Amino acid sequence: MRNLLFKISFDGSLFHGWQIQSELRTVQGELKNAFYELTGENVTINGCSRTDAGVHAKEYCFNVKTSSTIPCDSFPVALMTKLTPEILVVSCEEVSIDFNAQYDCQSKEYEYIFLNCKNLSPFMYKKVCHYKFRKLDVELLNNACQFFLGEHDFSAFCASGATVQSKVRTIYSASVRRENDLVIFKVCGNGFLYNMVRIMAGTLLYVAEGKIKPEEISDIIKDGDRTKAGSTVIPDGLYLNKVFYGSEMNEVKT
Amino acid sequence: MRNLLFKISFDGSLFHGWQIQSELRTVQGELKNAFYELTGENVTINGCSRTDAGVHAKEYCFNVKTSSTIPCDSFPVALMTKLTPEILVVSCEEVSIDFNAQYDCQSKEYEYIFLNCKNLSPFMYKKVCHYKFRKLDVELLNNACQFFLGEHDFSAFCASGATVQSKVRTIYSASVRRENDLVIFKVCGNGFLYNMVRIMAGTLLYVAEGKIKPEEISDIIKDGDRTKAGSTVIPDGLYLNKVFYGSEMNEVKT
Repeated sequence: MRNLLFKISFDGSLFHGWQIQSELRTVQGELKNAFYELTGENVTINGCSRTDAGVHAKEYCFNVKTSSTIPCDSFPVALMTKLTPEILVVSCEEVSIDFNAQYDCQSKEYEYIFLNCKNLSPFMYKKVCHYKFRKLDVELLNNACQFFLGEHDFSAFCASGATVQSKVRTIYSASVRRENDLVIFKVCGNGFLYNMVRIMAGTLLYVAEGKIKPEEISDIIKDGDRTKAGSTVIPDGLYLNKVFYGSEMNEVKT
Repeated sequence: MRNLLFKISFDGSLFHGWQIQSELRTVQGELKNAFYELTGENVTINGCSRTDAGVHAKEYCFNVKTSSTIPCDSFPVALMTKLTPEILVVSCEEVSIDFNAQYDCQSKEYEYIFLNCKNLSPFMYKKVCHYKFRKLDVELLNNACQFFLGEHDFSAFCASGATVQSKVRTIYSASVRRENDLVIFKVCGNGFLYNMVRIMAGTLLYVAEGKIKPEEISDIIKDGDRTKAGSTVIPDGLYLNKVFYGSEMNEVKT
């Protein structure tokens, strides 16, 4: 039995999110079926996070325990013969038998992409959040980002109904940059609550629109009141960008 | 009655080409329905060209004769209320009553985009032609492009079954550039035969793969033998980029 860590990339606009649901097309469901077709095994696909319907991943990790003897080098191409091109299998490596892609994840980086111009290009549809109402002030938004940094209880930035015990998370970096008509919010942290990045991005829009001042983000965090933070912006603009693991990942069982 | 010229952009991966076909989703069909819903008129949509299934357009033009009194400035937004976001209406202007988007077109510019790297990103699927077999040599391909220039009978670069009388066309410019992993073939001419750009792009791959030398393109044109030119590459990488009209376009009937 080997424990294999896969890196994949997927276009979330074509899936009802990560997690298996009967009758709906999900990334986890497609991968489970692909493994079954390839190896005959009914494996458990342990994903690094549960992305929502419409959310994309430039880099997503999952691990699988398998009796298959397919070499790691060949596994991505072999698995892709059972998948459609909306999921790209980038790499496969053997990890220690106890490794879990969710629990061993040390930090994640997300990007939220606004298309900040008059028209939504058809080629960007479902890939960005179109924001045409005003030109976003990158300097102002970068100023606002600084108030997200550090360890905080992010209850105000969590969708209601979330059942996690602790809502304390640490944000390591947060910034906004412009690339032509794209305005990109990048944030890295040790973990994210349900809808947290989308609510942070919505709160940046509050700042952009003058509804709150950058420093008021600190008050919103302290109050812990979801109704004071911004709206949950659409999933289309959200990308899981990178997933970081510690050195234990590399202790391959041989 | 006004004659209106519209510029649009569309993602061709979601349509069975430009031309109306019963039971199939086409760009012309969607536009005709949108006009009917908006104005109650059963208009004729005169497109600048018949793009094939899967071919994209960054800029496409069509004209419509209409009794509608909707001002030109408001028409794009009004029409888009009846369309899905795969078609963007960029602009609308009044032109002389005799203007025809197909017959008055003086030249067109196309781009054919290869993704030249190992993996096809899911975000590029249906938007490019993935070419992973070798690194494309831009200098070599630019050299090859020079042999397309000028006025020639392009019978060798026309899909069989085409019924046009003359296969003589003039190519004004042709070049290849690299933007990171994208290799982009840009070509401008006074007209293009059926599948002509895709066969030109396929012939550039012949050059890249050493099957023919750049200067042999001249011989292929002279011979007029379709079987000597390259394969017709997939529609996914083809974009109508710009459409040029003469000054008569601006003679607005008032």
